[in-house]
Amino acid sequence: MPPPRTAAPRTVKVGLVQMAMADDVPGNVAKAERLVRQAVDGGAEIVCLPELFAGPYFCQTEDHAMFGYAEPVPGPTTERFEVLAKELGATILVSLFEKRAEGLYHNTLAVVHPQAGYLGKYRKMHIPDDPLFYEKFYFTPGDLGFKVFDSPKAKVGTLVCWDQWYPEAARLTAMLGAEVLFYPTAIGWLPEERDAYGAAQHDSWEVIQRSHAVANGCYVVSVNRIGFEPTPGGVADDGIVFWGQSFVCGPDGQVIRRLSPDQEEVAVVELDLARLDEQRTVWPFLRDRRIDAYGPITKRYLDDES
Amino acid sequence: MPPPRTAAPRTVKVGLVQMAMADDVPGNVAKAERLVRQAVDGGAEIVCLPELFAGPYFCQTEDHAMFGYAEPVPGPTTERFEVLAKELGATILVSLFEKRAEGLYHNTLAVVHPQAGYLGKYRKMHIPDDPLFYEKFYFTPGDLGFKVFDSPKAKVGTLVCWDQWYPEAARLTAMLGAEVLFYPTAIGWLPEERDAYGAAQHDSWEVIQRSHAVANGCYVVSVNRIGFEPTPGGVADDGIVFWGQSFVCGPDGQVIRRLSPDQEEVAVVELDLARLDEQRTVWPFLRDRRIDAYGPITKRYLDDES
Repeated sequence: MPPPRTAAPRTVKVGLVQMAMADDVPGNVAKAERLVRQAVDGGAEIVCLPELFAGPYFCQTEDHAMFGYAEPVPGPTTERFEVLAKELGATILVSLFEKRAEGLYHNTLAVVHPQAGYLGKYRKMHIPDDPLFYEKFYFTPGDLGFKVFDSPKAKVGTLVCWDQWYPEAARLTAMLGAEVLFYPTAIGWLPEERDAYGAAQHDSWEVIQRSHAVANGCYVVSVNRIGFEPTPGGVADDGIVFWGQSFVCGPDGQVIRRLSPDQEEVAVVELDLARLDEQRTVWPFLRDRRIDAYGPITKRYLDDES
Repeated sequence: MPPPRTAAPRTVKVGLVQMAMADDVPGNVAKAERLVRQAVDGGAEIVCLPELFAGPYFCQTEDHAMFGYAEPVPGPTTERFEVLAKELGATILVSLFEKRAEGLYHNTLAVVHPQAGYLGKYRKMHIPDDPLFYEKFYFTPGDLGFKVFDSPKAKVGTLVCWDQWYPEAARLTAMLGAEVLFYPTAIGWLPEERDAYGAAQHDSWEVIQRSHAVANGCYVVSVNRIGFEPTPGGVADDGIVFWGQSFVCGPDGQVIRRLSPDQEEVAVVELDLARLDEQRTVWPFLRDRRIDAYGPITKRYLDDES
């Protein structure tokens, strides 16, 4: 049975901007701004954009010219969203290709606060490298560790895409007090794989993120790109079909809202943060962690060489 | 696309014995033996029994008399299953209430090998304590750490019930080389909660275990009790409805087989262990773990006191 509530409902409205990108940075940023406005018009107090929304998903090839998409963080794009956040009174999660120094780049999530402006950033800790997702060429793995930021109505845990496959990342972010884990994402199917593996791939992706909500008793918000982006220099239908299906799940892991698999969409979802207390009272997983026995998790593998 | 296979199929057949227990230890053990025979008749090479199958789920109350159900491990029950394992040529996972010393008890999973006999044991590391699941009264948390055992055809990771909510437990067991994570389980609904929360509770339970398969690229086999067990001394319908639905999922987290929610059932499922290599090649999560940043996972919580 549900425990007596220890607190009144404490709500926050999150906005998910599931958008498609073109090879047109000013156009993408202008569209992102328009869709953030739409989310806030719908009541959103924290708005999350997809991973690397300012450009095409340039990691489909290894091309030095693509470093031209990078910018400092904070920098021109965060400044623009600071103005917007203040105007709208909302927190905005801004995923950017960060140029930190010549030859040193990160995949970075900036947090922009409605009053305080640029609050800080998280640098994606886990970097993939797969066919058409050549991220290790572009991004040095993050060196800021796992992060949480205070927005006016909720503690925001910041994670990015490939991080979503790592229970350690979700756990450490939740242990910092995050009430909502946000995952701006760029994940899709290769067209030739979609029929055979598509459904299972998408399901695995949703399941692992839902499991982070269950394990940690917190909300998860995942915001994906949508639409087909061709591979530069590729032939025929080479490219990625970003599968959208951005979603929100509750601290019991149940999906509250799932967006379209093939359309741009802005959604606003109200979360009751008092549910964290309720869920963790009923299923008190944090109580029983065997922290005395988890040390070897910092090993690569537990074979004879470790 | 799937990578070229690096190895020929390498199969093992696992047997799931989803059984109902009565307050009759000899009867339960005899039934377990009969159902293990049935599984092996169906081809099973590794058979898993539910958690604490020898007795009723005695943790519904805190009663010193219940310590009478405990026995040494190895002891009479493992000896009986050693004989059976040798006769049948199968590995058997035997979940027992272990009496280690006067006043010192564990919830223990013994591994019995068809040739070598008793191989060793895992002691449940995470111990729950919830209404009708008063396990902290009975069981000292395990002190053997996480374990893997070599059966003739697969590396067996041994975990028990409440462990299933902890990604750390699955990760560390997989890092030891486990190809299949086994979770003998005793989980169910309180009758008064079933309508309101039952579906979500079951789904959370399945999701978190499927996520361990995804995160670690290994098989998961979860074997639950089935049927209603009344609370000793309780009134009306006080008790637990064990929800069955034992299942097997592949290294992509997809459910291969799910057993009945209301019937005893023995299932035999063939696993192709070469799929681990295939899955981990396509989704190489182990490659990118940030072991330099996971140290704080050995903290209780990351607040000012940690």
